[in-house]
Amino acid sequence: MTQHLNTRVLNVDLGTRSYPIRIGARLLADPASYRELHGRPLKLITDHNVAAQYLAPVCAALKLSDADVLSLPPGEATKSWAKVEQVLDWLLEHRLPRDGVLVALGGGVIGDLAGFVAAIYQRGIDFTQIPTTLLAQVDSSVGGKTGINHARGKNMIGAFHQPRLVISDLATLSSLSRRELLSGMAEVIKYAMLGDADFFGWLEHNLDPLLALDGNRLAEVVERCCAMKAQIVAADERESGRRALLNLGHTFAHAIETHSGYGQWLHGEAVAVGLCMACNLSVRLGWLGEDEAQRCIALVRRAGLPTTPPADMTVDDFHEHMQLDKKVQGGKLRLILMRSIGEAVVSADFTPELLDDTLSRFCRIEAK
Amino acid sequence: MTQHLNTRVLNVDLGTRSYPIRIGARLLADPASYRELHGRPLKLITDHNVAAQYLAPVCAALKLSDADVLSLPPGEATKSWAKVEQVLDWLLEHRLPRDGVLVALGGGVIGDLAGFVAAIYQRGIDFTQIPTTLLAQVDSSVGGKTGINHARGKNMIGAFHQPRLVISDLATLSSLSRRELLSGMAEVIKYAMLGDADFFGWLEHNLDPLLALDGNRLAEVVERCCAMKAQIVAADERESGRRALLNLGHTFAHAIETHSGYGQWLHGEAVAVGLCMACNLSVRLGWLGEDEAQRCIALVRRAGLPTTPPADMTVDDFHEHMQLDKKVQGGKLRLILMRSIGEAVVSADFTPELLDDTLSRFCRIEAK
Repeated sequence: MTQHLNTRVLNVDLGTRSYPIRIGARLLADPASYRELHGRPLKLITDHNVAAQYLAPVCAALKLSDADVLSLPPGEATKSWAKVEQVLDWLLEHRLPRDGVLVALGGGVIGDLAGFVAAIYQRGIDFTQIPTTLLAQVDSSVGGKTGINHARGKNMIGAFHQPRLVISDLATLSSLSRRELLSGMAEVIKYAMLGDADFFGWLEHNLDPLLALDGNRLAEVVERCCAMKAQIVAADERESGRRALLNLGHTFAHAIETHSGYGQWLHGEAVAVGLCMACNLSVRLGWLGEDEAQRCIALVRRAGLPTTPPADMTVDDFHEHMQLDKKVQGGKLRLILMRSIGEAVVSADFTPELLDDTLSRFCRIEAK
Repeated sequence: MTQHLNTRVLNVDLGTRSYPIRIGARLLADPASYRELHGRPLKLITDHNVAAQYLAPVCAALKLSDADVLSLPPGEATKSWAKVEQVLDWLLEHRLPRDGVLVALGGGVIGDLAGFVAAIYQRGIDFTQIPTTLLAQVDSSVGGKTGINHARGKNMIGAFHQPRLVISDLATLSSLSRRELLSGMAEVIKYAMLGDADFFGWLEHNLDPLLALDGNRLAEVVERCCAMKAQIVAADERESGRRALLNLGHTFAHAIETHSGYGQWLHGEAVAVGLCMACNLSVRLGWLGEDEAQRCIALVRRAGLPTTPPADMTVDDFHEHMQLDKKVQGGKLRLILMRSIGEAVVSADFTPELLDDTLSRFCRIEAK
């Protein structure tokens, strides 16, 4: 991919908790990327895969020694209670002070885990995200949702805790596995579906070069998604309203991930199925045109993402896991549904029967 | 004690997170005390001792069944990582939704634990405090500091998370053990020392009836302390300034508690020693008059509280535990010190030698 893109800076506007997102190529090896952190006590967590590729240049840029780094196993299973305890023990053993900074180098798993640890270590310390996957760059590194999984539900334990700085190095995207890249594309498609019809059309036209890792187009994707997320988060940090739209497809997706055991499905793969299911229910409600739903599902399929849940998953499995969704309010499940491509809404205005029709349709498809 | 005091309501003014503190006799059995919680899904945690005395009337007032209650062992050792996990598992097993409320019935240990669980369950749910000890009523139930202990330091893991409601039933104070009552008195003396010379004088004159559980005087103590705390918290919720003054004596106290193993010393007992040590260092700095220091230490002693640390504790033990204090900034320890009775300051303006003089003085006394 092209390596000489200009660095672009977006700002997440949250008063005293505002922070910059720097997006560009080869940022992670550049000490200037981290100027806010200069002179502060730092500790870094990462995973073994990311460490093999990027730890050396990041440590050089941040002047970190081996004792300042904790590397964890890659994969969703690392977002666990046991790993939070391990990181906390390590920080206390190494006596990171309250004015220190925890740096997360990796994908969504490392970012969510590090952010949660930073939220509860000494009642909250600063943290910095260096996302190295498309999914983390377009979505999870921005906005301050942190947390871990529980056997009973995805992201059931966590906190809202904003980073102080996000460094998105586009060069890292060229080394992603195909599966990781596609997982990120599911979140990209989600942004277009929920809030930007023009972007959706642009994705339809540019999907092939994107999947071929065209640097300029990937840069545009990261910038557009981050800009949309920054705007939504600034308006509704704690998800009392509009921010919930970013969960399009996620209630279905979390049920799939919880059912399958964390790490079997990548998050974006489950989101891809969830987007298709949300479209289906939206059509049943008469809110979304059948033709628009087909465009959405076709884009998901063209991206090489799954469109149906695991073969062994039943309607009852979905019900069981969706019952604990964080958007349940007054005992009623709320879902993000589509009015049109580019317009999503939070709604509890669906009958249990219509939801069952959608669940049956998707569970039957795979059961055949 | 007098049972027919009027209910007094104080407000902690924090914008959308403001909440009332209701103070009065026989509040916990009265459904009207909890009117904000009506109709919401509730779970309650308490400890075995408190449960034996107050669980039945609280459950009746809140219409809770056995399945809605989790009772834990009493004592500081319950403020642990393992107990947080146990409570989270229990909440998820019983599917408390995000719009539910966690109720803490008990002293500072239950309140700090429940508050922390509420802070991280589904990224934060509402919680309510029903403090049943003097220490919890005058201090820990108000202000949103939640957390647990770690082998390496007291309250090292936690969050700022405000309750939505605090119900202080003064009738519970009459059933406290002597030791628990005195532990609370240490925090009361702390308030007077750090910010209210008139209150200090009042305490000197009213100590004996207070220790004899005079209801009107205890009510006045709870109200004055809560009013002072509410004002300080409203001005500085996240402890970036003035709120740190509430930690007068606490850096020394936390070192004692960490050293001794949680539960050997009650928190207030350790705070009592810390207050004496802060006075000593303040005199050495020339900030506090020797006569004023002696008045403070005399009041602590008259209350039947300890004035010297555990016999086996050395200067090095203090250094080791104080190094991890949350108020360390730029590598430098800051302490709350006294300018006069009623006026405390946060300061790093002491030499290591002066601090060592104070530590040696207190460790030597007991070593004799």
